[in-house]
Parts: sequence; structure tokens; C-alpha cells
Amino acid sequence: MMYAIGVDLGGTKTAAGLVSGDGAVLFSATVPTLNRDGGATVLDATAALVSSLTARAEAEGLDVAGVGVGSAGVIDAAQGLVISSTDAILGWAGTALTTGLATRLGLPSSSIRAVNDVHAHALGEAWAGAAAGSESSLLVAFGTGVGGSFVLAGHPILGHRFVGGHVGHFASPYAYDGGIPVPCVCGGSGHVEAIASGPAIREAYVRLGGARSVADARAVFVLAGAGDATACEAVRRGSAAAGQAVGGLANILDPEVVVVSGGLSDAGAAWWGPMECALRAELLPTLSGLPVLPAKLGNTAAMVGAARLVLAPASQPALTSQPARIPQL
Amino acid sequence: MMYAIGVDLGGTKTAAGLVSGDGAVLFSATVPTLNRDGGATVLDATAALVSSLTARAEAEGLDVAGVGVGSAGVIDAAQGLVISSTDAILGWAGTALTTGLATRLGLPSSSIRAVNDVHAHALGEAWAGAAAGSESSLLVAFGTGVGGSFVLAGHPILGHRFVGGHVGHFASPYAYDGGIPVPCVCGGSGHVEAIASGPAIREAYVRLGGARSVADARAVFVLAGAGDATACEAVRRGSAAAGQAVGGLANILDPEVVVVSGGLSDAGAAWWGPMECALRAELLPTLSGLPVLPAKLGNTAAMVGAARLVLAPASQPALTSQPARIPQL
Repeated sequence: MMYAIGVDLGGTKTAAGLVSGDGAVLFSATVPTLNRDGGATVLDATAALVSSLTARAEAEGLDVAGVGVGSAGVIDAAQGLVISSTDAILGWAGTALTTGLATRLGLPSSSIRAVNDVHAHALGEAWAGAAAGSESSLLVAFGTGVGGSFVLAGHPILGHRFVGGHVGHFASPYAYDGGIPVPCVCGGSGHVEAIASGPAIREAYVRLGGARSVADARAVFVLAGAGDATACEAVRRGSAAAGQAVGGLANILDPEVVVVSGGLSDAGAAWWGPMECALRAELLPTLSGLPVLPAKLGNTAAMVGAARLVLAPASQPALTSQPARIPQL
Repeated sequence: MMYAIGVDLGGTKTAAGLVSGDGAVLFSATVPTLNRDGGATVLDATAALVSSLTARAEAEGLDVAGVGVGSAGVIDAAQGLVISSTDAILGWAGTALTTGLATRLGLPSSSIRAVNDVHAHALGEAWAGAAAGSESSLLVAFGTGVGGSFVLAGHPILGHRFVGGHVGHFASPYAYDGGIPVPCVCGGSGHVEAIASGPAIREAYVRLGGARSVADARAVFVLAGAGDATACEAVRRGSAAAGQAVGGLANILDPEVVVVSGGLSDAGAAWWGPMECALRAELLPTLSGLPVLPAKLGNTAAMVGAARLVLAPASQPALTSQPARIPQL
């Protein structure tokens, strides 16, 4: 059995674990991401975390094939570079992620791979989670933002500029109030993320004239659970917008299965019910049997998917071995 | 140089041509599709058309590698079967397209390949048309319907049930009137196709209270060109909905280039102008330089793309040879 270290490098914490060739996490550890101190400091801390796990694996006689990283930001997976990033990690943009880790760990660059964390998350679920065994899956995560990834024959489709998967940034009829599009964090407006993210649900409650002071989406869900009509409407709009968006994406991409994840998907039936109803209302008749599944791996998904980047060669068929769905050119 | 016969099998006519290994059409011919007489009759006529072209190629000493077909309907590209089809070709659903042609032509089934015509169209433009040389392209066609295809490293992404590319069937804020979604031909409502197709532009003119009798979208464009305010508004909504939809898809898929085709794209600046404006308004900042190109091959695109299905092996890199954009698993 081969093993790899999978790293989930987020804005507030960095988790890493030893992942086996069948997708199990044997052990893991978490450190705060030193998100105010620049890229080099983040790499130092990440390398130290990886070293401690590698040492433990070696002590147990386990073979570590390499290190996979799922990182916040837009990641050039070919060069292992952080192309851009929000201020969640100051100075992260421009960081040579894979070569920086390779130098610190004394490993060849070829044994370290990196992708954006949402792609890692989706790859984890596709490999060893809710979509395990599928030929293609679409994962969409609804939380602080809205992100997703289409995994085809084991490959997350990263996009030409590595910005593929921005599934929160297309138009949603729910993101209009009286014909005026609601502003989106991307600078545009009327987008899915502007109505279906957690912060957007809180903002909708305020915009609809909600009487109570609410700190976050969680507070809106509590009010909705207590029968507050404005909170119910904010939750309804957010969840229906989410489902309508995922259903439309399924019509376009025709994945074998859909996985819905993120903090909102954990909010229970109040969100999942109207989300799935709107999703199924949107589907073409041919897709009526589409499996719509909650994620299974919880907060280890990105770690597992990241490890997969370096564990795959022996077991992963090339995309072109899938003639059933892709013309064999 | 290798050659192949490419067939574009549509509801009203079937065109076939001899296509060279560099994407040129040497000669072609067209016959009416016998769309009321059932699948076997359509196959008879198609085989006769292919035979005549093959005979001419052989007479000229040209080597024909096989036959590629882009066909109306949902096509199982692995089995070469017509999964479903509209009434445009009666009895087409269930037809064994590739084996039926192979039997009639005395060819091995392995030398005949088939995909849906929109995927063939996109593959033609990706190979030898507007998107030639690109690693990935998204083509969207606006005409009687709205269809599209995402071509990645030379492979149109067909979807698990071969229904991928139904890019007309996701929500459009423009497809709502006073909060009520406009019915869509798919049975759903509020979809891009319900406002952005040619027939939808005609219907919008009528719905908006247009004073004149209009037979089709062309008549609405003529009125708009003469300053009819209702016609201008119908065209504006249809073209803006088209652009917004394509822009959102670009954010999600991040193709290297976008190709816009179909009858409406040929209507000139009155459609293309507001379409491209809405498209660019929708893009994430990272995509601001995205090339948005008109199609180049005209009505030979599907024929050329279909031929590509059997011409590719020698020259087409496998998808996994594209590590820059897809993790090399």
C-alpha cells in the first residue's frame, strides 16, 4: 500500500494527514495558518507540519509517495504557483508553493502537487467519498462563498487560467430585487453567490426588512426555525437559488452524480429540502434519476483529494481510457 | 495525408463531405433527410451518399480512413446509437446508427463514429475553425434552439448520459416576465432557451404587445432595424440573455476561447453587440481578456468535426498529455 501526505491549506487553519492508497486518513494534525506573516512563513509552518507527519509515517514503516496540497487561492497546478488569493492569507499570491515546500522538505519538486482547495475537496469526494466509483461528478459547496468542481474520470477540470469552478458567478433570477441585481463579492451582480452563500442569506434577511439583529446565516436559520416569516423567506430564496443553480449546471455538464457540500448543506432539512426541490424542478427529463448526495468526508475531503494528486498514477485510468463518455480521439 | 467522410445529419438535410487530415473539405454533397420514413430509410440514404463520396475519393486515389457522423438527437457515442430524438426525424430514436451504416457500407463498425451534431459542430470549430489551436473552447449556438459543447484537449465533453451541452436549459433572469418564468420547450421554465432562441425572440415581441404580425425572429430583426421599439426590446432581451448565459458559463468552465455561432450570431451587430456587452459584463476580472469569436466554418463545421472523430488518432494528443490544465493523475 502506498501513502501520501494530504494538506488542506485554508485561510484560518492548515490540516494535514497521512492518506492511504484507498483513501483512508490514518492520522492527521492541524495548525493555525499564519495568515498575516507572508507566504514564506506559511510555507515554513506547512513544511514543519508535513515533516512531523512524514517522520511518524516512517517510524511506522509506511511508504510516503509525496505531498499533495489543496490551497486557498487560484493555483497554477502546472507550475505549483499561487496565482492570486484574497486577503485571507496576506502575501500568498505569487508564492512558489510546490518548489517552496520541496526545498524545505528536501524532496524533488515532482513529488509535490497542488491545486485549489475546492478542486481538492471535490476530488476527495469523487475518489473516496459520496461520489466514489462514479465516472464523473459535480460538487458544489455552499458556505461563506459558493464554489465547485467538475471531476471527470478522476480529473478535476481546472480551466485554462485555473479559475474553472467559479460556479457562484453566473446569473440567478433569485439574485434580483425588483428587477435590480444584488451586488456580488466578485464585483459583478445578480450572481448565485449574491443570494445563495451564507452571508447572502443574512443580507437577504436584512434587505427584506427583518426585524431582528442577526450576526450570520446561522442566526437567520434559528429565526426561521422559530417561524419568523422574513427569515423563512431569506432561507427559501438562498436554498432555492442554490438548487436551481446546481440543477442548471447538471443539465449542462450531465455528471453521473451531484454532491452538495459546505456549511449550508449541514443546516438540515430547512435548507436541503427546498434546495433539492428547486434542483429537481430544473432538470431535463433525461436527468430525472440524477443522484444528489450530501458530502461524506466532512472536513477531511480536501486533505484526501490533495493526497490523491500524488497517489493516483498506479490506479487511475487516463481520461482517454473512458471511451463510453468521451470520444476516443 | 489521411481523409475521412464527415456527415452532418440534420432534420431537413444531410450533408457529407470528404475532409482531409488538416480539416479542409475537398468536396461535398447534400441530400434531403427522409425525415418521415423511419430510421432504416434515413440510413439507406445516408449510406448511398457516403458511398458516392467514397467512390469519388477512391477514383482520385485518396485514402478514406472512415466515416464520422454528427447527428440530430441524443447520441450514445460509445454504442453509436440514437438514444432519443425530436419528431424532426420520425423513428430516429433507437436507430443503430454506426452499425447500421457499417452493414450498408461493408465497413467494420470500428471505422464509423457518431456524436450529436452540436458536439460535432464544436469539435469542427475547435479543430479547424475559430478555436483552432486552442487547448479548450466553449461553443454556444443560438438559433432555433440553444446548444453548446465544451471541447477540452480535442474532446467534446459528452456527459454521462450523453446529454451534456444542453446549455439552453439553465435559469436566465431575462426569461421572467413580472416574476413569472417563461415556459421552455423542455417542459421547464425560465431557461435561457425560453428567451434567447430565435423563436423565443419572436414570442417575446408578441408577449410585449408588438403591433405587427411577425412570422419569425428575422421579421423581428427587420422591425427593430426600422426602429420599432417593441422589436428592439425583444432583440435586446434575447441577445443580452444569450451573452449573460455564455459569460456565466465561461466563469464556470474557464475555456481558452469562446465561440458563438448559430443563425442569430449571423444577424449582425444588432444581436452581436448587446450579446458581447452582456457577456463581458458577466465575466470575472481574471477572464477579462477572454477571446469571444464568431464561428468560422459556417455550415461545414459539423461535417468537419464529425470527420475529426475518425481522423484524430495520429495527431491528437490524449487528454492526459495536457498536464498544464488538468492534474496529471
